[in-house]
Parts: sequence; structure tokens; C-alpha cells
Amino acid sequence: MADKGLFIDTLPHDGVVTFLALVREKELKPKRNGGVYLHLVLADRTGELDAKIWDSPQETSALFDRDDIVKVRGTIELYHDRPQLIVQRIRRCEQGEFQEADFCPASDRDPDEMFAELRGFVESVADANLRVLLVSILEDADVAGSLKLAPAAMRVHHAFRSGLLQHTVSLCGLAEAIVRRYPRLNRDLLIAGAVLHDIGKVEELEVSRRLGYTTRGQLVGHVALGLEILERHTARLQGFPVELKTVLQHLIVSHHGELDKGALKQPMLPEALAISIMDLLDARLEQAWTLIDQAPKDEEWTVYAPSLGRQLYRWPQGEAARVFAGSPVAA
Amino acid sequence: MADKGLFIDTLPHDGVVTFLALVREKELKPKRNGGVYLHLVLADRTGELDAKIWDSPQETSALFDRDDIVKVRGTIELYHDRPQLIVQRIRRCEQGEFQEADFCPASDRDPDEMFAELRGFVESVADANLRVLLVSILEDADVAGSLKLAPAAMRVHHAFRSGLLQHTVSLCGLAEAIVRRYPRLNRDLLIAGAVLHDIGKVEELEVSRRLGYTTRGQLVGHVALGLEILERHTARLQGFPVELKTVLQHLIVSHHGELDKGALKQPMLPEALAISIMDLLDARLEQAWTLIDQAPKDEEWTVYAPSLGRQLYRWPQGEAARVFAGSPVAA
Amino acid sequence: MADKGLFIDTLPHDGVVTFLALVREKELKPKRNGGVYLHLVLADRTGELDAKIWDSPQETSALFDRDDIVKVRGTIELYHDRPQLIVQRIRRCEQGEFQEADFCPASDRDPDEMFAELRGFVESVADANLRVLLVSILEDADVAGSLKLAPAAMRVHHAFRSGLLQHTVSLCGLAEAIVRRYPRLNRDLLIAGAVLHDIGKVEELEVSRRLGYTTRGQLVGHVALGLEILERHTARLQGFPVELKTVLQHLIVSHHGELDKGALKQPMLPEALAISIMDLLDARLEQAWTLIDQAPKDEEWTVYAPSLGRQLYRWPQGEAARVFAGSPVAA
Amino acid sequence: MADKGLFIDTLPHDGVVTFLALVREKELKPKRNGGVYLHLVLADRTGELDAKIWDSPQETSALFDRDDIVKVRGTIELYHDRPQLIVQRIRRCEQGEFQEADFCPASDRDPDEMFAELRGFVESVADANLRVLLVSILEDADVAGSLKLAPAAMRVHHAFRSGLLQHTVSLCGLAEAIVRRYPRLNRDLLIAGAVLHDIGKVEELEVSRRLGYTTRGQLVGHVALGLEILERHTARLQGFPVELKTVLQHLIVSHHGELDKGALKQPMLPEALAISIMDLLDARLEQAWTLIDQAPKDEEWTVYAPSLGRQLYRWPQGEAARVFAGSPVAA
Amino acid sequence: MADKGLFIDTLPHDGVVTFLALVREKELKPKRNGGVYLHLVLADRTGELDAKIWDSPQETSALFDRDDIVKVRGTIELYHDRPQLIVQRIRRCEQGEFQEADFCPASDRDPDEMFAELRGFVESVADANLRVLLVSILEDADVAGSLKLAPAAMRVHHAFRSGLLQHTVSLCGLAEAIVRRYPRLNRDLLIAGAVLHDIGKVEELEVSRRLGYTTRGQLVGHVALGLEILERHTARLQGFPVELKTVLQHLIVSHHGELDKGALKQPMLPEALAISIMDLLDARLEQAWTLIDQAPKDEEWTVYAPSLGRQLYRWPQGEAARVFAGSPVAA
Amino acid sequence: MADKGLFIDTLPHDGVVTFLALVREKELKPKRNGGVYLHLVLADRTGELDAKIWDSPQETSALFDRDDIVKVRGTIELYHDRPQLIVQRIRRCEQGEFQEADFCPASDRDPDEMFAELRGFVESVADANLRVLLVSILEDADVAGSLKLAPAAMRVHHAFRSGLLQHTVSLCGLAEAIVRRYPRLNRDLLIAGAVLHDIGKVEELEVSRRLGYTTRGQLVGHVALGLEILERHTARLQGFPVELKTVLQHLIVSHHGELDKGALKQPMLPEALAISIMDLLDARLEQAWTLIDQAPKDEEWTVYAPSLGRQLYRWPQGEAARVFAGSPVAA
Repeated sequence: MADKGLFIDTLPHDGVVTFLALVREKELKPKRNGGVYLHLVLADRTGELDAKIWDSPQETSALFDRDDIVKVRGTIELYHDRPQLIVQRIRRCEQGEFQEADFCPASDRDPDEMFAELRGFVESVADANLRVLLVSILEDADVAGSLKLAPAAMRVHHAFRSGLLQHTVSLCGLAEAIVRRYPRLNRDLLIAGAVLHDIGKVEELEVSRRLGYTTRGQLVGHVALGLEILERHTARLQGFPVELKTVLQHLIVSHHGELDKGALKQPMLPEALAISIMDLLDARLEQAWTLIDQAPKDEEWTVYAPSLGRQLYRWPQGEAARVFAGSPVAA
Repeated sequence: MADKGLFIDTLPHDGVVTFLALVREKELKPKRNGGVYLHLVLADRTGELDAKIWDSPQETSALFDRDDIVKVRGTIELYHDRPQLIVQRIRRCEQGEFQEADFCPASDRDPDEMFAELRGFVESVADANLRVLLVSILEDADVAGSLKLAPAAMRVHHAFRSGLLQHTVSLCGLAEAIVRRYPRLNRDLLIAGAVLHDIGKVEELEVSRRLGYTTRGQLVGHVALGLEILERHTARLQGFPVELKTVLQHLIVSHHGELDKGALKQPMLPEALAISIMDLLDARLEQAWTLIDQAPKDEEWTVYAPSLGRQLYRWPQGEAARVFAGSPVAA
Repeated sequence: MADKGLFIDTLPHDGVVTFLALVREKELKPKRNGGVYLHLVLADRTGELDAKIWDSPQETSALFDRDDIVKVRGTIELYHDRPQLIVQRIRRCEQGEFQEADFCPASDRDPDEMFAELRGFVESVADANLRVLLVSILEDADVAGSLKLAPAAMRVHHAFRSGLLQHTVSLCGLAEAIVRRYPRLNRDLLIAGAVLHDIGKVEELEVSRRLGYTTRGQLVGHVALGLEILERHTARLQGFPVELKTVLQHLIVSHHGELDKGALKQPMLPEALAISIMDLLDARLEQAWTLIDQAPKDEEWTVYAPSLGRQLYRWPQGEAARVFAGSPVAA
Repeated sequence: MADKGLFIDTLPHDGVVTFLALVREKELKPKRNGGVYLHLVLADRTGELDAKIWDSPQETSALFDRDDIVKVRGTIELYHDRPQLIVQRIRRCEQGEFQEADFCPASDRDPDEMFAELRGFVESVADANLRVLLVSILEDADVAGSLKLAPAAMRVHHAFRSGLLQHTVSLCGLAEAIVRRYPRLNRDLLIAGAVLHDIGKVEELEVSRRLGYTTRGQLVGHVALGLEILERHTARLQGFPVELKTVLQHLIVSHHGELDKGALKQPMLPEALAISIMDLLDARLEQAWTLIDQAPKDEEWTVYAPSLGRQLYRWPQGEAARVFAGSPVAA
Repeated sequence: MADKGLFIDTLPHDGVVTFLALVREKELKPKRNGGVYLHLVLADRTGELDAKIWDSPQETSALFDRDDIVKVRGTIELYHDRPQLIVQRIRRCEQGEFQEADFCPASDRDPDEMFAELRGFVESVADANLRVLLVSILEDADVAGSLKLAPAAMRVHHAFRSGLLQHTVSLCGLAEAIVRRYPRLNRDLLIAGAVLHDIGKVEELEVSRRLGYTTRGQLVGHVALGLEILERHTARLQGFPVELKTVLQHLIVSHHGELDKGALKQPMLPEALAISIMDLLDARLEQAWTLIDQAPKDEEWTVYAPSLGRQLYRWPQGEAARVFAGSPVAA
Repeated sequence: MADKGLFIDTLPHDGVVTFLALVREKELKPKRNGGVYLHLVLADRTGELDAKIWDSPQETSALFDRDDIVKVRGTIELYHDRPQLIVQRIRRCEQGEFQEADFCPASDRDPDEMFAELRGFVESVADANLRVLLVSILEDADVAGSLKLAPAAMRVHHAFRSGLLQHTVSLCGLAEAIVRRYPRLNRDLLIAGAVLHDIGKVEELEVSRRLGYTTRGQLVGHVALGLEILERHTARLQGFPVELKTVLQHLIVSHHGELDKGALKQPMLPEALAISIMDLLDARLEQAWTLIDQAPKDEEWTVYAPSLGRQLYRWPQGEAARVFAGSPVAA
């Protein structure tokens, strides 16, 4: 494996540097005095940098594509007060030379470990029909492969590689905690709801180095795609009770809570209410801490988050936490 | 077949009458001075009538059930200024003694004739994949049987036996007219949208003598049930193009137009826009004329329609139509 | 203590009965042939019954008031097909002759026990300032007395005696469960939010035998009344940090989540988001099970709940639960 | 007529060119080293180009105005990677030297031909009062002149020269198709609604080379301006029935369908419902195809359309259309 | 003039009475034992009373119509605990025998006096064009006659005879007060806005003994009817400046403030903003005091007002006003 | 006091200038060829200007801070067609050398004079309890100091130094005018509402040279902060009637009118309705004239105001005002 070198947010503002980066944009542009040069935007999980290649731009451009990882060497300059890289050497890296996670935001947790944990939750389901169905879905190679990679959303929450899996596992654990406080809730249905409510996202969101909606995702959405996966698997299971399928469909179509937020039906079972609210809790907290962690250390407020319609307050961060005099209030 | 006798809206306000009716309500009630009597609500497609049975109420009650058709003979009286029937004879009618259509509102058109017309539209679809799919759905006994009976809605529009079929056929005809005006529209997709957009209603609405939602209908809704039918049939067709399935799913999930009206996605194809708007046009016009026809002859305004949030104006009805002096403005 | 006698929902439909009841309505009405009679509506926690007193109505009326508990003896009759009581003897009961809980719905749990549990949560708060403040509020006789009696709402959820206390204690327990799943959350703030978010309801809702808004409650609301209680107690505590007061005020003013639902500010701290969502979860689940338990045993659906805009589905209740073949799905 | 020369979207990126263009912007700007130069934005219906005049800028500036058509000769250069024109010769063109349609987007159809078609529809109206009224409006020089030029909207749909007329004629044709499917609809009223619903736009939108609202349009809007035109013409017609005027006013004030979309009244006649929905259909389809046609050939999606709140899907365009294997699905 | 006799809210509950009343309802109903009787609802501005005529019902019914004023003599009885009148003598009253104001709620102020005051405001307008226009409208017999009688609304505010005139005059006075505080406001436009904003109500609301919408009112609304009146009068005035007409039209179409409240345009002039807000103030205060005055003396709260979505608080009424110890806070 | 020198909007586009300015931004930036320069944004109440310091940038940067007032001398140049200042001399000004009002927008009126006027209104309150309370608040140094400086809003209306005080005094005057037209309104409550409704803004908005929300303002808002001030002062007054406090709290929590606009309760008293509507009137008119005065002289329309969702029309400004021929319509 090649050395990643410096991350973009730690690069100096001048001098010669060597590092690995993702090619986010690549374009031949005309020079003022004729001829062309190659313009790049390089990126890793810490930021982006403009780059220019003056020599043999067309030949160089043929060596790699957008979304490739490259090893690059060049000189940093300031241009219009922003740093840019004048490239001297660049080459495409092969699979194995780098770690995917260095180039796009990813879950802190290992996908295989999370998948095993999810498998454990599914196997703990008491009802045989339901357990067999959920195992069938997790063993579906199309689903499992994507589930390990997919984000839970483009932007709002868990918007990183394996975010969907992390959100799903987190909801299973939350379900366990909630059912202990409210023992009338049916644990099996809560686990099923945690696994199924967003399962259509394995087809809705692209799992390449570039987060994005698939065409099916944009035209049909993860609710309908989740129903499709459910239908495919229940159709294979002889004698799967239609009443149970109906309830599972209900958990999927109701999990957004209200019609104007994308639900086809409002939640009509205590378990459907619980899934919908737990989903909100997990999504909001993950989003909140991401915003808080991304804010500069000395800022009291995060950036404005359009999906929330507000900024978040970072108290009690750092020194201000001492308001809680002499006691361990903040983590 | 027994003689239906008078329809309820033409019964005299006194005297002895004999006629056939649907038993909408049946209840044993205590008499003031002890003992019980049998209280009925009788109905046909023209209205309702209270009835009382004083003799042998318990034995008589055992002879028929709610939703049965009965032949009844009795005397009409006024009670609290409203007519009621004092029953002297009553018996359950057998299948064959009556016409279903006399007892609940039904389409003016013959279901088999409409189904044949629909079949014709489906067979005119040019694309082979799409034609085979639609034929497969119409030949599905579970679908076809219900489609001939189901209403298109509980209340708002086409709320009568075979209303769904009538609405579907009407949309096919409208599609044909629209595609002639806008030849860039894809006729095949418009026909497919007309057939599929509400197809889930065959499982959403009960097709007995009493309009009502099924449990599946209430929990899952006709959009998800329509997706299920589509999935079932595309799964059977080898090599059905996933791009085409995606577009058909889009037509189903987008046909309510806006999220807060029950769409999962806004229409994103010209054909999806057209289906959604044509659906609105056909539903609104049917509803409008039903309201207008139900209003008393000399009323300028219909009753208030909660689903529209308004009354409708009946002009130019009857004499007022002469405003259009000397010309054939109104039908 | 006097014997309660039969509850109203188990009274026979004729014969002589003796039982204790709350006087919900009391009115002298003119008889058709001159003179007056006394009309009552009697109630207990199971239902209501009309009653009439023909003898000495005016003298009898002077013996008790609306909202008194009375011991009554009389004969049940049917009138317009509904039972009513013709009273022969009636007298006002004294405090000690009856149990309050028989006459209005109340929490299943003992208020003192719940209060002790709440006290335990408050004493476990790590931050000294916050702990002293919360203890100060719970030791405030005006607050504590009402807190043991007040409902959490007029209608929607926990709409019974001690409902506010039950909701508060439930949220504290939920906070503990949530903080274990999300250890970045500040446990002290969650406990504080659970205790304070609805504390103004001790002045908003009347805690007599008749649930109702106080004048202050209707004009000012529990958010502002909660702020007032907080201000009163922080003013007494020397050197209470204004930053901490600000955060507590924020928890109160933001707990309804959105402006159009009664929040002055959207939640801007992870803990404020959590409080707002946990509040929703506890309220919705309590409301759901109340609706489910009130529905007749064989009904698949609850009544329509206007505050939810829907009916709830009671599955898997009773026999239908066997769909989950051979496994303990439902409690 | 002068030769138009190349359209802006086909100009080379260097070399000397001569062509006709509209002057969209014109401004004298200070040079860095003192003195001024003349900055222009040139446009035709295919795009825009920056231009600079270094010699005699003030004298040249006096030769033409914003919104004039000019004949220009100069050298194309790249500046900040964008092409710009260094002007050597420029002169104002006279009426007759150019075709208006080359310089702003315009209907594909000839205005006079469309106007004749509209006249035909109006003359086919059966009711004499209505026919005379509509003819009177079309013969009003103020109306007719503008109607031939005005767009139907600033941005959303038919946002081009003669767009209003094209939309009006299209609706008349659609009315004819619809009335054939729904013969209870009054054809006269549909034609009247098509002609009148947007007639106020002849005063709302400016019909110069620059689409824009008039002051009257912005302060009063096309609904009120349409009512004004209707009032002016009915006032001239002796004995025009007030009932008919009322219905025509209703068609105008209700055609936006809902109050929050600009209707003063919801549609209350079947014909008013139909006009409002047909208007939506024609507007949406025109807008959809314009978006689709403006998108680059290989893009699956159009740009985001703010007025629709979505992107549109361009399927089945080009090769992807072969999904419909072997059949003529797409035009 | 005949003596009105007792008002309905002061009638005794038994005995023989003679008084004048409005016939609100009149219907022949079948008697239980055959034959018919005449059922009436009698009314005056203080309330309603059921009445029955047993003798010669058909002949008697022919003597008067709904909405006539009658002189009636009969015996009061209690029926189902409500008083009713058994009529012995009844006859139609002629114009001149009674005062209109006794039979429907009416303004406290004399219409002619208010009209004179309004005339004074109009004549004080400084701009000649505007003054001539407003005078022309007030001298239009169709307008003036209705203006003296029409209510300002069916229910919400000034819902009584001459309410529109009272509201208009009140706004003129308010305009004068406001312009003194904000001298940049144009007094002429404020007076014009006060007079014109609701002028269409003279055709929208019926000015008979029964408040109600006219057909034109329901189909077209007072905004469009006001524009029509304005157009009719400006058309008669040679050289009336179109800019001024435009601003007046703007005042009319914008006075509801927001599109979803019935405005075609939001107010875009300071004077239009002021008219819209002053209109709200005058309407809300009149409505508030009506609600407060209608509530029983000892009630702290008024009835729930659906148009406001709330009850109003009556403090400081009566004794409670002493809270303001020793000072004249309440009128 | 130093001479302010030219205001920024009157500076020449070249030559040497000397003037006083506020330092809005200050940043050391790298030069292209190595080393750094000091970049400033200078401002006064008329506008902003970029400035660069090439000599001894680091030493110079240490001499003053952001938000200081400086005296600066330099040469104006055009850079990218915009003027900038090359600084030759710069020094920090001391308090006393300048007038605060020159550097940020401020009320036209003197704060002390307005405060005295407000004091006069407060002393005219008839009710002793209320008068003592209001005086107590105005004598609270924390309140009074901020009240003289605070703006009434960040952007929407009265967004300038002492704007809150100006708005408060203006509402008191308006209250006086309104109470004269509607004598049933309680003058004391109107004055109290004018003083208290926005009083929390003294802690919500920062009163430095930079308008901005405080942390408390953003987390808690001026409604809750106003309640806190009220509670602090009523707690000090022995025997202040709780009924009166409740009404004052109601005026504060209801003054935004509707829940979705930030009210906790809708106004339920005539005086609360009046306060809420008068507040709207004063805010809208101030905002309207500010927009109108900021627009260029010959523009018919103001800029688009996002908080209003519209542009405003500037008629009748300047020459167009002559439409009102021969009469003094516009100020």
C-alpha cells in the first residue's frame, strides 16, 4: 500500500508535496495564449484542492479518469489568494495501494462487524416466519453488498459510506432499549422495522466514490424499492402469512410519519409509531453531532443546516463547560 | 325474479306496501313497557326507511341478516313526522330473485362491456413487453373479478359498484383524445398509466353490498397494493426490462401529483404529469355531475362537498339556461 | 368508607340500585304540567347516567352541589331506549367515605411512589447547581402538591389524575435508557428536561374532579408558566450560572419541536432535540395503548383520534396474534 | 434584409466574425489605467456574449441603445477562459434588416395563422351573446395587437413571443377534444374560458424585446385586468345578460383553481373545473418539453425547475428508448 | 305603527301573549292522526320561538309568507321543556306598522347619519379626480341604497344591517387618526381605500331580512364586484388617469393582505399596507366586543369563535376589574 | 472631536483622501510573490470600501481591532473596476473623537429625548400597580441602558441603533390615537403592551457596532426574555395582583398574533388584539419607507424584500405624483 501522504487540510501553503488524492473534476481548458492545460479538482476526506497541469495536458488526461485515485507530486502556489497545485508528476493508483476510507467520509465502524451485529439481531427474532424472511433478505447478495456500502442519506444524516448499515444497527440497539422501557411493544416488529424501513436505500443511493441518487431512486424512491425487496422475498417463502406481510409493508410505508414528509400512510400501530420516532431520534442526533464536530473549535454555533432550518448550539463544549462547576456534565 | 316493487323514494306516506329491500341495520330494542321489538333500517339504491316488527321479534330476527335482501310487506305510518314501516311479513330473498344493482348505487354501464373495452385498449398497446404485462394483469382472476365490482373511491368520485372500471376505461378514452392533441406523448404509457394507477384499489376497497376499506387497504393503501400487483406480474415475465418497470412504478407512485396528496414522488415524465392531471379531470367531473344530479330540481346550489371544500353551481340548469337566448348551450 | 356499590357500566337495565356517584350536572327543569323536577347527570370513572328527582326537587337540590360525591338509591328505567335513574334517596358523601380514584380516571401507579422515584432521579444529577435547583422545585409545596394530581393533558395523552407525574417519571427512565445508547448526551440535562419541560402544567390544568384549563393556563400556557417557576427558583439560588439557566429555558421553550406546534425556538442542542423527541414517543405510546384498551374486544380498529388524525390498528390482539405462528410475539 | 450571420451558440472561439445581435446591456466602464471603455452584452435567441469597445467608446455608445439590434464585426478572444468579442465595427440596424424572432425566443407557429384559428373557434360559438362578446374582444385593437405578441408567462410556461396566443389556441383545441369525451360540458363556455382566462396578460406582460411585468401587471395582475377587459366590452353590448357575465367573471377569477394559487374563488361549475385543469395540463406539458429540449442530448435529467420543485426525466430519449424493444413507443 | 309588544327573549313561559314577529320558517306538517298543522318559526332581533297553528292551517298559511312580519296572539306552553306558542290569531303587518330594526340585528347608528358622515370624508379628499370618482360612486343609487343596508359580513364582523356602512365610516375616522401619526401616508388614498375596499359587498350580500350571499357574490366575490363598480364609474369620467385607477384597483385587490386570505396581490404601497391592517383592526375589535357582549354576565370566557380559532377573555369586566385597584382602567 | 471627513458614498474615484471609518473586516493575506499584506473593509453609515496596506502590515495590524474607528489617509484606485484604498497612514481613534452615529445606522431621533417621552407615557398610566411596575422596569439600569441603544430587529424593521426605543415610543403614540377612536380599549393596557411586548429585545440583540443576536437571544428569544424581566420586577413589588401579571404575560406571549409567527397564545383580549395589530402596522410602515428611501430616485420599484415576499411600489414619488393633478397628495 502506498503512503497516503499529507491530507489536504494539512498541506503547507507553499513548497513541493507528494500525496494521494481522488480526482473529483478533470477538464481540458484553453490557455489565454492558445493551447490548453489540464484543470483538476483533487480531494480526500478532509477537503479539496485545485490543480493545474501545463505539460502534455492531453496525454496526461488520458492516463486517469474522474473518480480515480492518483498519486500526485507538485508545487503549491497561491493564486487569487487560494492555494493551488502545479502538478509535476501524476499517476493512477491501483486497488490495494490505498484505503477507500481516506477519500470519502465513511463510518467509524467496520462494515463487516456491523453486519455481523445486525445478523445477530435478526437471528434473535422470535417469530419463525419473520426471522426466516429477514435472514433471507440479509443473505440476498444484491442487498447485503450494497447495505455494507450505502449511506443512509445524501446529505442530511449518516451521509457517509456504510451510513445506512450504521443507522440500521443503531436502531436495532435503540429498539432493544425502548422495548425494555415499554414492554407492551413487540420486539420482533421493532427489529423488523429497523431492518426494513430504509432497506430500499440500497437501490436508491449510489455506492461509488460519489454519493448520488440512482435513476430508480429518483423516479421511485426508497419506500417503493423497499416494498419491492420485501415482495421478492415473501414471494419465495411458502405460506408467509399475508397479515404479517401487510404489517411489514405498513412499517415501510409509514416510517416517515406524515404524508407531507413522504409517508403513504400515517403510523397506525404502536410499533409503527415507535419506529418512526426512533428513526427521527437516531437521524437527528447523528446529524447534530456531525454538525458540531465540523464546526471550528472556538465557534459557539454550527453552520446553518438547511434540512433543520437552524444552527445548532455547541454548548457545553470546551471551556464553557465549566459552567457546570465541579461536575462531569459534558462527555 | 321477484318484482322489486316500489323504490323507497316513491313509497306513499301511508297505506300497505310490498317491496324488496336491503337490510342495512337490524337491532332488537327494549320496549318501554317491557319486552323487545325488532328495529330495521331498510334500503335500496334510492334511499332508506325505518321499520319496526312488533310480533315475534326474536324469531323473525333469526330469519335474515344485515346485508341480506328481503321481501317485506307492511303499513306506512308517520312517526315524529317521518314515515316508518310497521312490518307484517318479511322473508329473505335468494340469489336470483333480485338485481344487485337495485340495492346499491352502481355504474350505468355494464361491467362486462366496459371490461371488453378496456381489454381492447390494452391490446392496442404497441410495445410488446408492456402489452403482455397488461394482458397478464387483466387475466389475473383476482384482479379481474374485483375490477368489475370495485368502486373507485369510498365517497369522493365514482363511489359506486364498477366505479373503478368505469374510471379506468374513461381515462383510456381520454388518453386517446389527449395524445391526438399532444402527439409527443407516448400513447402506450398513457394507456398503461390509466390501467395501473389505481389498480391497487381492487384490494383496497371491499366489493360487498357495503362500500368500505379492507384492512390491507387501510394499512397499506392502493399505491403500495398496486406496486405489489405490478411486481407479481413483472416477476413472472422473463426479461421484462427493469427500465420499463421503473417507469411504470413511477406512474403509480406519482399519480396523486403532490406529496401531501399521497404521492411518493412528484410526476417527472410528461406522461406522468398527463396521467395525474387527467385523473383529476375525470374524477372532478364525475363528482360534479353526481352532486348536481342529486340536488333538488329547483336548487341553484348543490350540497356542500367536504372533499371539494365548496358547493357547486348548477347553472345553466332548467329555465335559467334560457339566458343563452336562442342557442343550444346546455345539454 | 362507604361501599362504592356497582360501577355505572355494570348497572342492570331495571330494578332498584344503590351506589356512589359524582354529580356532573345538576339542573331544575320545568315539568310539562307545571312545577319543576331535578335533573342530574351522575358519573364515575366508568361512565355516566341520567337521573330524575320528582319529589321535593328544590329542597333536595340544596343538599349537594355539582362535583360532589353522593350516595344514591333509586330505580332504573328505560326512557327513549336509554336507561335513567328515578331517585328515591340521595345524600352528599363526606371526604373519607369514598376513594377519589373511583370517580375520575387516574394513573395506575401510586402518586407518592412515583414522586419518590422522581426525587431519586433528581438526586442522581451530578451537577450541583442543577441538582439543587431541581430539588428546590420539587420541595416547593405549590409545585409538588399539584404535580401529584395534575394530568399531563386535557385529552390527548396521560389525560388522568397524576398523569403529569407519570409522564415525567417515564421520561426520566427513558432518558436513562437513551443516554446509555448515546453516551455523548448529557444525562443531567436530559433529567432536567424531563422534569422541567411540562412543569408549568401544574398551573395550567386544574386538578379538581373536572379536568380543565385554569385562566392562567389558557391566557399564558404551560411554557410561560414553566419559565416563571424556573425564574422564581433560580432567583433564590445565589450565583446560579446564567448560562445554565439559559439552557434550561431553552429546553422548556423548545420542547414542542416546531414553532407551529407551540415551540418558541426550535431545539438547538442535541439534548433539546432528544427531549423533544422522547416527549413525543412517550406521549404517543401512552395515547395509542389507551385507545387500544378502550376499543371493544373484537374490533380491529380503535375509534378515530382527532389529535392523531387517524384510527389505530389493534393487531396483533387476541386470536389474530397467532399469525406469528408458534412464537411469543405479542405481550 | 441583412444576413443574420452566425448564431451566438455556433461562434468559433477565436478569429474574426460578423453577425447581428441584440444589445442586452450597455455600460461605460473605467479602464485601470484611466479613461473608459464600452462594455456590451450581446444576445440572440441562442445565447449571450460579452463584448468590449476600446476605441471612441463614448462616441460609439451614442450610436445605439439597449434593446437595439446591431450589426457587429470583431475578434473573438478568451478572457478568464470565457470567449469575449473585441469590437471593431458596430452599427444600429433598422427595422426590416432583421427578423425579430432571431433575437428572442418565439412561438414556432405564425401569430397571424394562430389568430385566424382562434377567430374560427370564436365564430363557432353557438350562443349569440357570447359569440358577439368574444368577437368584440378579438377585434379590440388594443387586445389583438398584444395578444399576437405577448408571452403566456415570464418564466414558467409559454415564456416566449406569442406564447399567450399559442396557449389560448391550444386550449381551444383541447376543449374540443374534451367536450367530445364529456358531452355534458358546455362547449361555448369552454371556448369562452379558453379565450378569457388569461386575456388580462395582454396588459400584464410587456411585449418588447425584454419579457417583463408592466406596472399595472405587477400592481393589479392579469385576473383583475381580464375582468376590466370583460367589463369594458359587456358594457358596450346592449342587454348582455348579467347571469352570463357573472359566469364569465367566475371563469376568470377561478381559473387558478385554489385561493393560495391566485384564485379569488374555487371553480364551482363543471366548466370552470375543466378550464382550470385543462389550463394546468397545457401549461405543464409545454413547460416539460421545453425543459427536456433544452437539456444536453446525453443528460438523463433536465435542470431543476423551481416552479415545479423538481427535475424532469427525459426517458425515453435517444438510445434508451429501445427498452421498448421493437415497438414505436417514443415519437 | 303597531305596538311591537314583548321581545321574544322577555316572553313569559306560560299565558297569553300578543306581539309582532318575523316569520323565519313556515311549513305544513302532517299530524300523527291524519290531517296537517302549520308549523312556524317566529323571530325578532332577540331570538326565536316555535309556533303551531292547529285550526284552518292551510287557509292561514295562505295569508302570509316567509320573511313577512306578522302580528300574532296565542298561548305559550312548554313542549319537550322548550316554550312554544299555540297561535290563536295571526295576520300580516303592512309596511309602516313596524320598525325593520326590531326584527334583525342592526347597527346602533342611524344609516343616514353615517352616510352623511361618509359623504363628508369623501368631500374632504384633496385630489379632484379622486373626489369626483368617490362622489360619483356614493351618488350611484344602486350603490348608495345597498350601502345603507348591507352588513359587512355574513358572520365574522359587523354582521348586521348597515354594518358595511358602519365599518366604512369607522375606517375613515381611523384613517384620519393614523395619518396624523404617520404624516407620510397619503390621506386621500386612505379615504379612497376605506370607501372602496369592501364596496363590492353591496352586491355580494343580500340586504333583505335574511343575511345571505347573492349568486353573484358566491360566484364572483366582493373583490371582483368592487372592481366592476370602480370600472363602471371611471369609464364615465373623461380623462381619469389610468395610473390612479391602477392604484385604486390595487387597494381593492390587495386589502385581504395575503393570497391565501383572498388577496390577488400583496399590498405594495404603504397606503395599501395601512388599509389592509386598519381593516383587520376595525373588524377584529368589532367582532371581539360583540362576542364579549353576547356572553353571559358572569362568564369569564366568550363562546369559541371559529373564524378566530379561539375564545376571548372578558377581563376586566365587572367586579374583576377591581384588580386595577383604585384606578379607572376599564370603561 | 476629529473631522469625520467625507462619507464613503461621496468619495472620489481617484486621488488622496483622509476620513474616519469603522474597521468592519481585518485580515492578513499572503501576497502572490511571498510575504503578506493587510486587507481591510472600512465602513461608515453610508457604505463600505476595500483597503490594502502594503507597508509593515503586521505591525500596523497590531494597532487596531475589528470594530474600532480609525482615521485613515490613502489613495483611491480602481481594481477590477471597483474603487479601493491604498492606505498610507492609519491610527485608532479614541472615544470622543467621533460620533457613533456616523458609523452605523441610527434613529433620526435623540435617544434621551425618546426615553423621556416614553417615561411620560408610563407616568400617565392610571392604575397604580401597573404604573409602578413600568417605572421600575424603565429605572432598571440593565434595561434602560440597552433600551436606548438596541435596534428593534436585525433586519426587518427599525434595524438601527435606538430602533427598539423608537418603535416603542411610536406604539405609545399610536395607542393614544387608537384609544381615542375606540374608547372601550383600556389605555393603561395598551401603554403597558407597547412598553413590554418587545422589552426582551434588550437582551436578545447586541448593541455594539455590529447588530447581532446574543447567545441568550438565539436560544431563548425575546418573548421568554421579556417574561423574565417582567417576573423579576413583579417579584419585587409586594402584592402585585397575579391577575394583572397574567394579563401582562398574555400581552407578551401573544403579540406575534399567530403560533406559526412565534406567538405562544393567540391574542384573547381586545387590547392584546390591538397591540398585535398596531405592532404590525408600525413595523410594516417603517420597513416600507426605509425600502422606498433606499431605492434609487428614478426606480419605480424597491428591491425585493425577503421578509415581505415582495417589492414595494414607490408611487407617487417625484414627477409621477402629478397624476394627482393640482392637489397635494404626496408629502
